[in-house]
Amino acid sequence: MDPARLTPMPTSPISRRGLFGYAGAAGVGGAAGIVGGRAWGLSDAPTPEPPNRVLGQDYSPYGAQQAGIFTPQSQVAELVAFDLLPATDASALGRLMRVWTGDIAALMSGRPAAGDFAPELAQANVSLTALVGFGPGVFELEGLGPSLPAGFQEIPAMTHDRLEDRWNGGDLLIWVTADDATSVSHAVRRLVSDARPFASRRWTQRGFWRPTDASGAAVTGRNLFGQVDGSANPKGDVLEETVLSTDGWLAGGTQLVVRRIEMNLDTWDEATRDRQEASMGRRLSDGAPLTGESEGDDLDLAATADGSTVIALDAHARLAHPSQNRERRMLRRGLNYTHETVVDGAPVDTSGLIFCAFQANIADQFIPVQRSLDQADALNEWTTAIGSAVFVIPPGFSEGGYVGETLLG
Amino acid sequence: MDPARLTPMPTSPISRRGLFGYAGAAGVGGAAGIVGGRAWGLSDAPTPEPPNRVLGQDYSPYGAQQAGIFTPQSQVAELVAFDLLPATDASALGRLMRVWTGDIAALMSGRPAAGDFAPELAQANVSLTALVGFGPGVFELEGLGPSLPAGFQEIPAMTHDRLEDRWNGGDLLIWVTADDATSVSHAVRRLVSDARPFASRRWTQRGFWRPTDASGAAVTGRNLFGQVDGSANPKGDVLEETVLSTDGWLAGGTQLVVRRIEMNLDTWDEATRDRQEASMGRRLSDGAPLTGESEGDDLDLAATADGSTVIALDAHARLAHPSQNRERRMLRRGLNYTHETVVDGAPVDTSGLIFCAFQANIADQFIPVQRSLDQADALNEWTTAIGSAVFVIPPGFSEGGYVGETLLG
Ligand code: HEM
Ligand code: HEM
Repeated sequence: MDPARLTPMPTSPISRRGLFGYAGAAGVGGAAGIVGGRAWGLSDAPTPEPPNRVLGQDYSPYGAQQAGIFTPQSQVAELVAFDLLPATDASALGRLMRVWTGDIAALMSGRPAAGDFAPELAQANVSLTALVGFGPGVFELEGLGPSLPAGFQEIPAMTHDRLEDRWNGGDLLIWVTADDATSVSHAVRRLVSDARPFASRRWTQRGFWRPTDASGAAVTGRNLFGQVDGSANPKGDVLEETVLSTDGWLAGGTQLVVRRIEMNLDTWDEATRDRQEASMGRRLSDGAPLTGESEGDDLDLAATADGSTVIALDAHARLAHPSQNRERRMLRRGLNYTHETVVDGAPVDTSGLIFCAFQANIADQFIPVQRSLDQADALNEWTTAIGSAVFVIPPGFSEGGYVGETLLG
Repeated sequence: MDPARLTPMPTSPISRRGLFGYAGAAGVGGAAGIVGGRAWGLSDAPTPEPPNRVLGQDYSPYGAQQAGIFTPQSQVAELVAFDLLPATDASALGRLMRVWTGDIAALMSGRPAAGDFAPELAQANVSLTALVGFGPGVFELEGLGPSLPAGFQEIPAMTHDRLEDRWNGGDLLIWVTADDATSVSHAVRRLVSDARPFASRRWTQRGFWRPTDASGAAVTGRNLFGQVDGSANPKGDVLEETVLSTDGWLAGGTQLVVRRIEMNLDTWDEATRDRQEASMGRRLSDGAPLTGESEGDDLDLAATADGSTVIALDAHARLAHPSQNRERRMLRRGLNYTHETVVDGAPVDTSGLIFCAFQANIADQFIPVQRSLDQADALNEWTTAIGSAVFVIPPGFSEGGYVGETLLG
């Protein structure tokens, strides 16, 4: 173990108090923490400071939430959506969830899953997390309809959308992250292969993030426009209120929106730096609001200079700000992507953001914010949603339990 | 700086003596080493032990060789091949090389390149390397034909090839690696964008590798079959003799073969572990030869048990072994890939190896070995080359110089 990992991190993305409080309230077995290192997040014991280096950890598969929601961001991620096969009913889905739970428990601990074809690729200390979600199709299965969580729905069409079916929808989701792409692809392969009797792969999205700075300390990270992305994410008690459902079987779980958003880097590059910063309302250098000093400062939306607001009326960070959205928030965990295809025989290279946001209620949180961004966001000039999917993320599970048991059990 | 990086590494992939010897002989300015850390490889001072952690370094852009040949493997890589535009002559190519050299010198040091659109994405300590290569088309430019290096040629068609034009060829290559995909994509974007007046993108291949074990120590790494891949790479004096050209302007440079080789993981999984190991002649658990104890042992091709050779006659490691190939060797630096496309509306996910091999002379080294593998290799059952490209890799450059100057200067 790298001793540097055990030194305190200057800014924790998650308030310890907040998560600790929730763990007490929910009491679902153990905690999503680091195995064989220091605990991260939920714990019964006094929670230590999170580690300085977020690279190279084992996270516990067990806890009040599935790992991959509150755990620190890793470097590499793969999201796979599946279509249920016609024969898969609720009880078959329950069998798949038990199989996946076994896989996840092993792989997150750096152990091969049962029947693993390449057991040596199950490696420890790569910060592997694997999250399972249910798409709308699950609630069309006989008997499950009445369990549809409040506010869980597809995103209505937006003016700026150019959705392609190949990136849309899905009845099931797995979202695997780690600090190593070989480990991610090995875990994904195991999960896809075990799903074969029940569901077929619909789409795969691969993304990456840099969650540390040059010294290895945890930072917010940047998208491919160069913007610091994730700064204003909710923290502390607000984080839980924002993300965690209290609704029936989903209590302690959450809802996830995945939008594949293409970013036109060529036209972005043509804009001046001033215009780029004005479109966001934040500085490119350090992510601080144009009205503030440092990344953590809140926006001052009323501040004016030379007779107009410092943060433009169409600035993304203004329009997305809770004060403009009846205090609606979400937890964003974006991933950068680059993708290479051939169109009419010519190679086309695209870049963008796999926008991922957790919230308790999609209808009440993501959708209204997305509507106001769709109307006026200055960023729309350079960004286009080309894929859209929604998933219910069941609460975590403890040893002996399985993912989705509160719905399917 | 992480103190763990400064502790000695148990097995060095490169013999210090060998590289040190070469530096003395070649004397081309500085050395490809670590800036602000310990030197790696070539140096005038006594060479220290290489670092334990290979993650998170700055490598020097200057040295007898371009970085990315002898530097330790990083986690993420992107290879981009270009077609020269019709108007690009030798002197325009020289201008592009000067621009690229400036970009590379800045980006490898974690500094934005001149005119960088997203300067904050130029990050230090991500082990960035960027290598430039010349395809056959360069030697068709007026005046350059006589400089075609001995043995530099396309790979002849092999029986098992199923080459697709989209992965073939290229007049220029950049090969960028780092421990962070955002840094790689930023650097690639800069280099592609600066090439626009001279060359257009032909193909992009993205790959990944895990060059460390769970404790962070440098290891050989595994391909997606789960095999330890790279064990028998040449070391010490043999490494230089294998890789480095002594031929005219290319002296100190090398030649590179890039083969995109699809690996059928589904049928591989169906084979028993015994059969998988027999097809290679090495163990899956630790990469040791079936006749040996540990990864570093040489194969005993004569050893028999129950009347037949322990290492099968069609085993990949036997057929590729120098003793079977008149002592021909190469330095392999493979990258795993996963790739997702849509065929007839259905998502297709493929996996494989971006096989990359450096050698002094392609005609004399890669081609005969490839021919004997094509004839008899047991691995052929699961592997298919779908892309093929060759590049001359000019020697390194020192401050004030530029990549390719011995050809174009
Ligand atoms: C490619 C598209 C997008 C990019 C590049 C982008 C980028 C950013 C950046 C740089 C920030 C400021 C720093 C931060 O707080 O993270 C931000 C804030 C935010 N964005 Fe986006 N965003 C995109 C799409 C969206 C979408 C689709 C939504 C939701 C519908 C959204 C919701 C938000 C929210 C809620 C905030 C925080 C505002 C605050 O509390 O101050 N973003 N975004
Ligand atoms: C997907 C295709 C391939 C896979 C999975 C693969 C895998 C391996 C593995 C696992 C080894 C043993 C460990 C090591 O020494 O690295 C090896 C050795 C080797 N392979 Fe491959 N290989 C592939 C294609 C090729 C090709 C196309 C060539 C050259 C034409 C090649 C040349 C070699 C050589 C020279 C050795 C070292 C033999 C020795 O010195 O003992 N391989 N390969």
